[in-house]
Amino acid sequence: MKIAFQGVAGAFSELAATKHFPENKITTLPCNEFKDVFHAVEGGKAQAGVIPIENSNAGSIFQNYDLLLSSEVWITGEVKLRVKHNLLGKAQAKLADVKKVLSHPQALMQCSAFLEQHGYDQLAFYDTAGAAKWVSESDDYSAAAIAGELAAKTYGLKILKRGIENNKENYTRFFIIERKERRSKVPSTRMKTSIVFALNNTPGGLHKALSVFAIRDIDLLKLQSRPIPGSPWKYYFYLDFDGSIHEESCGRAIEHLKEITKVCRVFGSYPICS
Amino acid sequence: MKIAFQGVAGAFSELAATKHFPENKITTLPCNEFKDVFHAVEGGKAQAGVIPIENSNAGSIFQNYDLLLSSEVWITGEVKLRVKHNLLGKAQAKLADVKKVLSHPQALMQCSAFLEQHGYDQLAFYDTAGAAKWVSESDDYSAAAIAGELAAKTYGLKILKRGIENNKENYTRFFIIERKERRSKVPSTRMKTSIVFALNNTPGGLHKALSVFAIRDIDLLKLQSRPIPGSPWKYYFYLDFDGSIHEESCGRAIEHLKEITKVCRVFGSYPICS
Repeated sequence: MKIAFQGVAGAFSELAATKHFPENKITTLPCNEFKDVFHAVEGGKAQAGVIPIENSNAGSIFQNYDLLLSSEVWITGEVKLRVKHNLLGKAQAKLADVKKVLSHPQALMQCSAFLEQHGYDQLAFYDTAGAAKWVSESDDYSAAAIAGELAAKTYGLKILKRGIENNKENYTRFFIIERKERRSKVPSTRMKTSIVFALNNTPGGLHKALSVFAIRDIDLLKLQSRPIPGSPWKYYFYLDFDGSIHEESCGRAIEHLKEITKVCRVFGSYPICS
Repeated sequence: MKIAFQGVAGAFSELAATKHFPENKITTLPCNEFKDVFHAVEGGKAQAGVIPIENSNAGSIFQNYDLLLSSEVWITGEVKLRVKHNLLGKAQAKLADVKKVLSHPQALMQCSAFLEQHGYDQLAFYDTAGAAKWVSESDDYSAAAIAGELAAKTYGLKILKRGIENNKENYTRFFIIERKERRSKVPSTRMKTSIVFALNNTPGGLHKALSVFAIRDIDLLKLQSRPIPGSPWKYYFYLDFDGSIHEESCGRAIEHLKEITKVCRVFGSYPICS
């Protein structure tokens, strides 16, 4: 099975792939951008993809919500990973050599206290492991990357400082995406469903929309509003609820929701990852 | 009147300050970080502060929601600005010289299509105008900044390429913060109120919370969930509604909301900026 992820070898998304799928049964396909992950899955170049969707400190990764909306893939699973950021330098480098730090903008923000304390220059990179790769290939001892331990191993870098994130309770949640819906083989598995909807602009619209779940005692797990690109101050609502669309009450809730919303789409039901 | 803002002269926040307050009656106080803006207002070094809170493409600026929660300032107004990003180079530079682009991570993301098309190196800076200042002080012709027109004027830079943002409908909303509540002098002004709350973990909790507004026909203008830092997968809800807490129905809605939530705080009521 081939699993697409964004980034280079050693990225957190690759780690998430190996956590979800049996490691010896998959090969991974590194992609430049998130949209390439979607294309790889849609075009059949990969059987599944792994995309980060939410970080417990920084919030949702809107770009991937946008891509979910514009593609036709299904969410078939979720993975949660504890994110631990480390400052990685060349094998011969010392902490005192560091003048500039390279990483993904999210990682830079998540380590802002450490970075500001040291007054390092900050360079934005598309991914954390890519920054580690760059440092490993550079001759510049003053350059360090913020990335995970897997990236340090992958590129032979030294961990100059471990666990530099502002907040230790730093988790990222990933979605597994596939071309087709995957029905759970174990009917008793506790499932979760992800959907998106947009409201007609009427007072009480959101309350009405949520009532389709409340009257059926369906528990909401997450609600994320997202400005509709190009329509300032109008929002898509991305919602996760407890249950599968193949349960009668959840199926009815969705039918009910479709009656009262402008846009409503189910991305998939998948086993809850605790 | 002294108005604090984050960034250096020429920043979008400074532009927002001059849009909200009569330009000839204020002086501006540049601050390094958002938290310094809050401190300047709390400590009386500035009579008001301007903070960006939401971009129509990138979404909410969580850091400022977090700072609102941990400080005791009031929101007394809002400003909306169209954000136009430009590629700024040294006066003698040409577009073909550019190899690396400096800006705030948000601005880099908002111009990602243009940047990827040209394959520029991307350097993260704390603010767009700061990146423009850096370019103006550097001797490096291959460095350009993404910033607004005001920054080009402020630092004598040339606009190498105008309007490079992915999405032209790009607006940022700012809050005006002050130490004390400001009651509108014109009672007929249409007002908006910003609050935050956290739910007890019971099914239907969010639906119940929103019902305090629905049963009183109070229109919700925005709902933003924000992971509670350090408590993965639990959320604060930041909500804007139409009306002032000094109107009876809104005041009662808040009292009602406090009964059924764990945390509930009003940040202020202020005139709606259209």
